Amino acid sequence: MPTNSVVQPLLTDLYQVTMAYAYWKTGKMEDKAVFDLFFRKNPFRGEFAIFAGLGECVKFLNNFRFSCSDIAYLQEILPNVDQGFWEYLSQLDASQVTMSAIPEGYVVFPKVPLIRLEGPLPVIQLLETTFLNLINYASLVATNAARFRITAGDGVQLLEFGLRRAQGPDGGLSASKYCYIGGFDGTSNVLAGKLFGIPVRGTHAHAFVNSFSSLDDVSENCCNGRNNSSLNFYTLMCYCFPHRSGLPNFLAVALALNEYGYRAIGVRLDSGDLAYLSRKCREAFVLIADQFESPWMKKFTVVASNDINEETLISLKEQKHEINSFGIGTHLVTCQKQPALGCVFKLVEVNGEPRMKLSEDVGKINLPGKKSVFRLYSEDGLAILDLIQLCSEKPPEVGKKILVRHPFIESKRAYVCPYKVELLYRDYWGNNG
Amino acid sequence: MPTNSVVQPLLTDLYQVTMAYAYWKTGKMEDKAVFDLFFRKNPFRGEFAIFAGLGECVKFLNNFRFSCSDIAYLQEILPNVDQGFWEYLSQLDASQVTMSAIPEGYVVFPKVPLIRLEGPLPVIQLLETTFLNLINYASLVATNAARFRITAGDGVQLLEFGLRRAQGPDGGLSASKYCYIGGFDGTSNVLAGKLFGIPVRGTHAHAFVNSFSSLDDVSENCCNGRNNSSLNFYTLMCYCFPHRSGLPNFLAVALALNEYGYRAIGVRLDSGDLAYLSRKCREAFVLIADQFESPWMKKFTVVASNDINEETLISLKEQKHEINSFGIGTHLVTCQKQPALGCVFKLVEVNGEPRMKLSEDVGKINLPGKKSVFRLYSEDGLAILDLIQLCSEKPPEVGKKILVRHPFIESKRAYVCPYKVELLYRDYWGNNG
Repeated sequence: MPTNSVVQPLLTDLYQVTMAYAYWKTGKMEDKAVFDLFFRKNPFRGEFAIFAGLGECVKFLNNFRFSCSDIAYLQEILPNVDQGFWEYLSQLDASQVTMSAIPEGYVVFPKVPLIRLEGPLPVIQLLETTFLNLINYASLVATNAARFRITAGDGVQLLEFGLRRAQGPDGGLSASKYCYIGGFDGTSNVLAGKLFGIPVRGTHAHAFVNSFSSLDDVSENCCNGRNNSSLNFYTLMCYCFPHRSGLPNFLAVALALNEYGYRAIGVRLDSGDLAYLSRKCREAFVLIADQFESPWMKKFTVVASNDINEETLISLKEQKHEINSFGIGTHLVTCQKQPALGCVFKLVEVNGEPRMKLSEDVGKINLPGKKSVFRLYSEDGLAILDLIQLCSEKPPEVGKKILVRHPFIESKRAYVCPYKVELLYRDYWGNNG
Repeated sequence: MPTNSVVQPLLTDLYQVTMAYAYWKTGKMEDKAVFDLFFRKNPFRGEFAIFAGLGECVKFLNNFRFSCSDIAYLQEILPNVDQGFWEYLSQLDASQVTMSAIPEGYVVFPKVPLIRLEGPLPVIQLLETTFLNLINYASLVATNAARFRITAGDGVQLLEFGLRRAQGPDGGLSASKYCYIGGFDGTSNVLAGKLFGIPVRGTHAHAFVNSFSSLDDVSENCCNGRNNSSLNFYTLMCYCFPHRSGLPNFLAVALALNEYGYRAIGVRLDSGDLAYLSRKCREAFVLIADQFESPWMKKFTVVASNDINEETLISLKEQKHEINSFGIGTHLVTCQKQPALGCVFKLVEVNGEPRMKLSEDVGKINLPGKKSVFRLYSEDGLAILDLIQLCSEKPPEVGKKILVRHPFIESKRAYVCPYKVELLYRDYWGNNG
């Protein structure tokens, strides 16, 4: 079953249904079609994308069947359609479909078909929109997350905090899942934790501070020392910093808590000059740690948030920040730099004959024919290129020189001798044998 | 039940749960809190927003209850929490909550609380993220749709075609629903049609054209004349335009179909100079209509699509386009200009005492206290302003002069004498009596 109950055959554009009807009318129900799903341009003016969303496509195929109420609704909005078509539609499923694809999480490139679907023309046509919906945002946000990870470096924790700013409930859930695939360490989204096993993390909101107006608001029994300390926590606190807030207060509380057998974890910065404030925090941690002989305080976590994007991360690095963990929301989940990936789904073969779209816009012309994709590696283990060729062509072989062409620049050609050859496609659905 | 099954209490940030625990620990379970949900700045550098998403919030309240598996998951990720808290959490629901709000679809402004929630502090705290998630994107995309409508004018049809580019399945479904609220005429999304009764529309994809390679692909029996014409449809077609495509071909088919008792509807333009091409289409429609004495052809619909945004609509208008219907996808549903609204949820009162957030950033300081909002109208029926005041203050009265202040500019004040006073809040949940 798909994670989200709204993923069902009707989550599609109307024209897929009317086209399926036209295929049925013209007797093309059993025409064997091959469609490629690919993107034409890397997102974010970058040099790569991360492929994601495939798992949900498999679940969709597994569940692909029009319900009685679906058919009833379609009959209502398309009253002139032959009854025979509804009978045909009501027995459709994905059992005649085969799907080969690049594994989820792989680095992928423009023009390379990420998914190759084969099966009866009307059935594959009916899958188009849902597949694009499931792949486009998933791959976009995974790529965005990977870019944040590359920019931030491996030494820091990256947390996805975008649920409240995402495009609806599933936008939020997808963001949490695919940011994790893209290289994040966790999310604030509890449901994503429950459903996908992603680590969940959080701090606290301002409302929490505002809900207390004095120490009288706190009942004493809510803070029991772990080591049965005879000290009075409140007295200790008030004595330390009766009228201060912010960092000094945190340090006092951390020391008091330590006396009671609890270890504070760190602080969160949510506004101001994050690089400067993080350095000031770290200085204070070190100072107090030395003064109170509490070396563990030096390693307090500093979590930073507040509209963080790639540029902020670069700038903070240059300013030698002391942040251990970033909470990133809006810019991550909405992919502000480029909010849609633009994957397309093109017919490339019917009954063994290649098909292509012709256009005055050269970028819109697709590669015809049923294809296979190989990733070629050099001796040092690095990938050199992805080779697209027709399934009917002989696969590349290790140690054998082949002539390859650039996918965009006609004149660019090169000889490559692969040290290792990886067939990028795996079979994810149906009998590909 | 919420439209989307992922709308459940765990669709929240972890810190809401840990804060609820802290409230429980400090004995604040029964503290009566008031929270306001509002935005600080109009989206898209505009002058208004459309409020949307409220209906789903009501469904969420109606269904607000942690399941056994929710509690089990939370226990797993928060192992040090007192058992008593889990018992408390497992019996929570929204029965102690009251919600007043501005009706969905209203034009709304910054700082005006769109929703006012009142109830036990931990419960309202636990609602925050889900509410923000349900309101933020819904209101943003409804506002975007309204802006497209204002720009396009009332005379044209606007269709939402964004499903494949939206943020996941629910991003797509929300876009379809809230664009309709914002002033669109229909969507391509069939599920949105089924669930919400929105008119569904569509054209056809390029794959449909590509799936045919010659007339031999079409079986004769698929085109039966309605008026038992003795003409042969294929012969007629081939005779008219044996080697032409595009517009001349469409006109020939339209004439042939008419002979057979079917009326063609129109054409779709999906690339090129849309204004120029639409004018050329209209000229051809008129010419052929006159030549073949078929006046109905003059009124053929021209549907245009291809990355349309507000600027394109303005430019097409200036070029006197002849387009009847726009299919709008990416820019509409992703809200490219500003992909997040930024609604916030602030504590404004605890046990009858006002609370406010203090910040060096004046824009982040919220208005404290339990408030009410009135829309004041002038004699000509137009709204003058929205007046925010404390519930304890005397409501404005028709014909009585009142001093009002600008929400952002301290020095701006004015006397207003309302001709009509509308209390903007309606009771949507609980007993507000």
